[in-house]
Amino acid sequence: MNSSPQNLRSKMRCEIEEIPDALERLFNCSNGAILEAAQALQKLDPRFITTIARGSSDHAATYLKYAIELVAKVPVASIGPSIASIYGTSLKLDYSASISISQSGKSPDIVQMAQSTGKNGALAIALTNDPASPLGETCDHTIDICAGVELSVAATKTYVNSIMAGLLLLAYWKEDHALLDALQRLPEQAHKAIQCDWQTLAERLAHENSLLILGRGTSLAIANEAALKFKEVCQIHAEAYSSAEVLHGPVSIVDEGYPVLALVARDASQPSIVATADQLAERGADVFATSNMGQKFKPLELVETGHPLTDPLLLVVSLYSFIEMLARQRGLNPDMPPHLSKVTKTV
Amino acid sequence: MNSSPQNLRSKMRCEIEEIPDALERLFNCSNGAILEAAQALQKLDPRFITTIARGSSDHAATYLKYAIELVAKVPVASIGPSIASIYGTSLKLDYSASISISQSGKSPDIVQMAQSTGKNGALAIALTNDPASPLGETCDHTIDICAGVELSVAATKTYVNSIMAGLLLLAYWKEDHALLDALQRLPEQAHKAIQCDWQTLAERLAHENSLLILGRGTSLAIANEAALKFKEVCQIHAEAYSSAEVLHGPVSIVDEGYPVLALVARDASQPSIVATADQLAERGADVFATSNMGQKFKPLELVETGHPLTDPLLLVVSLYSFIEMLARQRGLNPDMPPHLSKVTKTV
Repeated sequence: MNSSPQNLRSKMRCEIEEIPDALERLFNCSNGAILEAAQALQKLDPRFITTIARGSSDHAATYLKYAIELVAKVPVASIGPSIASIYGTSLKLDYSASISISQSGKSPDIVQMAQSTGKNGALAIALTNDPASPLGETCDHTIDICAGVELSVAATKTYVNSIMAGLLLLAYWKEDHALLDALQRLPEQAHKAIQCDWQTLAERLAHENSLLILGRGTSLAIANEAALKFKEVCQIHAEAYSSAEVLHGPVSIVDEGYPVLALVARDASQPSIVATADQLAERGADVFATSNMGQKFKPLELVETGHPLTDPLLLVVSLYSFIEMLARQRGLNPDMPPHLSKVTKTV
Repeated sequence: MNSSPQNLRSKMRCEIEEIPDALERLFNCSNGAILEAAQALQKLDPRFITTIARGSSDHAATYLKYAIELVAKVPVASIGPSIASIYGTSLKLDYSASISISQSGKSPDIVQMAQSTGKNGALAIALTNDPASPLGETCDHTIDICAGVELSVAATKTYVNSIMAGLLLLAYWKEDHALLDALQRLPEQAHKAIQCDWQTLAERLAHENSLLILGRGTSLAIANEAALKFKEVCQIHAEAYSSAEVLHGPVSIVDEGYPVLALVARDASQPSIVATADQLAERGADVFATSNMGQKFKPLELVETGHPLTDPLLLVVSLYSFIEMLARQRGLNPDMPPHLSKVTKTV
């Protein structure tokens, strides 16, 4: 029954290919709930926002943190769920909103922290793939991310749809039409993102066990997510770093030929991250980057979306597609990462 | 002139041994400035706090985030300096305070972001080893962390003193006498922390290139710092993870015999992190933890400070002492990490 990993059509691959439809579906099924939550945010005019999430969902929260800070100018604090679940602490959250992100909506610590924000004065918003979950039930506004059932242990379409739901919420809240237009183009553009050909990088990483992934701003959020997936699916010890921090210490492990992947969006961070990528390449690292602006590194294809806040979201789609293929090329089954189960329940 | 690394008395070692004196000095030289800043916080009663920092200083900020959230119940948002320096965005910061942390006080992006918080309504507080630096000059309250000149590229005493200064500020602000008493005991206790004997772990890591470091709450902040130092000084690809997140994906790279170091403070997080450490040990990982509560892992010594918020601070002192020794045992000079310089100026 089992084909070899190289030719396997994995659940992860199927779910990556569902991303364009999943994005489309989100517009159709959750537009009303998102509009309502956006109106509540307009009415509240929050002083700050908190986010509550773990794993991939926490990387989605980091993406939304940058987007909210840049568009709404409101600071966003990521709260460790342990603040409520382990330490039993009630934060002062008057005139704030909380955004909890969980595919399953079931992890007790996320539910408890979300509940705690509601009790302590925050407008509680949930982004979840299961609105009937304990998380969905406990929040003031529950947005169904409509990704459809996700069977693969490695989250892909739920990550993309969580961010899409958060960006839509932001676009409606701030009535940002340019962002809204860009979001509407994404389902169509996502097809192209799945097809990006990064074969040169695949060859380089075929037998590699370490990888440094650089990003800045929103592309740092997806660098974190990509690092998690490289570990989870490809068993490569990948670590994400801000391109602004990599020269503070981590660069010590970057020897001659060390592989580095720099994630560059078409936004104001491009010159800075390109300069760092070039600098690392000059020191002998083997640097790949999604930019044509560099002198020393190997360029990778990027689907340009026409908006700085959506480029990184399609870049993660290309990354997922690449990581799934790389896992198979390394003889691994992307659907069977060692030691993992789909729902992690932490207290 | 050079002795072999094994017998070298490094600058890093000297500066670690200066930590007890540096802590003591902070009380004497900066008490007044800390009290003034604390009174300003009492008067303001901030709705939230932002932190601005990079590298080790950012790990100090994470430590203070947990401490402030647990003691003052005020949410703390870490702001990427790029928000101001790259994206030119002005956040809405009325009735908030910002805490910027930088040893040198010179990195342009930190200075720019700190300036921006002041302009946008925040009470700006700086923790720096150079009050005459651009950062020190630009903030409303500048606290000299009084660590003395730090020559080693790897920050040690400045990290410890930055956290000490922040915890003192918190203790005065919230008039938390138990915390204040605990802080006053630290200089004396720090001597013991330097002496902790972790030889079993040193033997295990002598020829190892990867390491997973677990923490939760404040011990997560020092797990991040320890991971940076293992990379920087020992050239071990160490990565920090929340003990609550490690089962979400990173565990894929944990094979039979994979080394794991769990940092356990004597606080409410202990049972949870011990359970995860035991679980990883049961799966065959080679787990060391600073706790005697486990069944399956190898216990490491911890200096107990009598307060949950100061245990992790002395634990980091033990870690520094250990990492410096391990570097020499691995034939490396702790003072000469490859590719690094002391002051990193990022825009």
